[in-house]
Amino acid sequence: MLTTEFDTSLPSIRQVQHLIKETTQVEFKLVTGDLLTGRVLWQDSYCVCIVDENSQQTTIWKQAIAYIKPKN
Amino acid sequence: MLTTEFDTSLPSIRQVQHLIKETTQVEFKLVTGDLLTGRVLWQDSYCVCIVDENSQQTTIWKQAIAYIKPKN
Amino acid sequence: MLTTEFDTSLPSIRQVQHLIKETTQVEFKLVTGDLLTGRVLWQDSYCVCIVDENSQQTTIWKQAIAYIKPKN
Amino acid sequence: MLTTEFDTSLPSIRQVQHLIKETTQVEFKLVTGDLLTGRVLWQDSYCVCIVDENSQQTTIWKQAIAYIKPKN
Amino acid sequence: MLTTEFDTSLPSIRQVQHLIKETTQVEFKLVTGDLLTGRVLWQDSYCVCIVDENSQQTTIWKQAIAYIKPKN
Amino acid sequence: MLTTEFDTSLPSIRQVQHLIKETTQVEFKLVTGDLLTGRVLWQDSYCVCIVDENSQQTTIWKQAIAYIKPKN
Repeated sequence: MLTTEFDTSLPSIRQVQHLIKETTQVEFKLVTGDLLTGRVLWQDSYCVCIVDENSQQTTIWKQAIAYIKPKN
Repeated sequence: MLTTEFDTSLPSIRQVQHLIKETTQVEFKLVTGDLLTGRVLWQDSYCVCIVDENSQQTTIWKQAIAYIKPKN
Repeated sequence: MLTTEFDTSLPSIRQVQHLIKETTQVEFKLVTGDLLTGRVLWQDSYCVCIVDENSQQTTIWKQAIAYIKPKN
Repeated sequence: MLTTEFDTSLPSIRQVQHLIKETTQVEFKLVTGDLLTGRVLWQDSYCVCIVDENSQQTTIWKQAIAYIKPKN
Repeated sequence: MLTTEFDTSLPSIRQVQHLIKETTQVEFKLVTGDLLTGRVLWQDSYCVCIVDENSQQTTIWKQAIAYIKPKN
Repeated sequence: MLTTEFDTSLPSIRQVQHLIKETTQVEFKLVTGDLLTGRVLWQDSYCVCIVDENSQQTTIWKQAIAYIKPKN
């Protein structure tokens, strides 16, 4: 875990903030190959926390994200 | 292993502190594909130490965490 | 996620800017083994956002890119 | 390989120092899936050096550690 | 993507500069397991760009390189 | 590729310097699973260059090293 900045002017940070606000369903593909889906509850420098349809929360380490795909 | 900050105001750091205090069972999915379960004993910038039901301690490098799932 | 610089004088940053401007189809090979193809919409320090022929947007974490191949 | 700090007040650094002093057998699970076992001889910011029962030394890069498990 | 330095006095940076100048065929083994071969066109802090015998350019992220092998 | 320090007082850096001087055969296990063997020619912050018995040189990125094992 590293010294980080959390620059809310960056498009990628803003996009996740937007997904939180819009309560969009998002697919997270991880470097493990796992595919997690849920609404984003919060993000910080290290993590993104999502909740699925069973109210199970999962905190994803950003270091493990390969890509995210908002469900349109 | 890198220069780190351990900012206890961050939600992700606070969440782990909360899991320690509540002695919650937590699933850790690692980038190796391993799934470890236990109560969190301590965290620092680099690691999270857990203990399982057989009192076996395991120190997980945060760099290897894909996601964590508290057992509700 | 780490302290970053986004130095637009670097060839690799400029190349992606060029791909955005030219709306070139680009193949992204990720460290997961995934192969994603699309036009690049934007990049920042952490991510590259692409859109495929079905207008599906995907935000790729740069940390997960192995290589990119512009379709000539 | 990155700028590092080696803060001996951190629990995770102290734990490895303790394992060195106590000559505890330790299992190292690596991100490659390898499982190495031995006593820890030394650590620095980048590496942990272990020795197995055949006196074979192995220097493990910390970047490749998923978790460690002291044999109680 | 991280704050980088591009220190042209380092042997590893100089070696790639040499490969560019000599237009040497080079094998790149990536952490994905991919093996790419080509002449190196340019490098910067983040990437190495190669071109194969079909004039297809590929930009490799240095973070994904396991090793390189110049073809003697 | 990151800002690095190359602190020759560190045991892990010194060990590789020692292996260079002693022309010891060394096994390198990489995060790809590759196992490479050779004598170490040089190291810098990013890389270790080895040569095998056929005089083939390979430059290994340190970021991809899981562990090294000197052949006693």
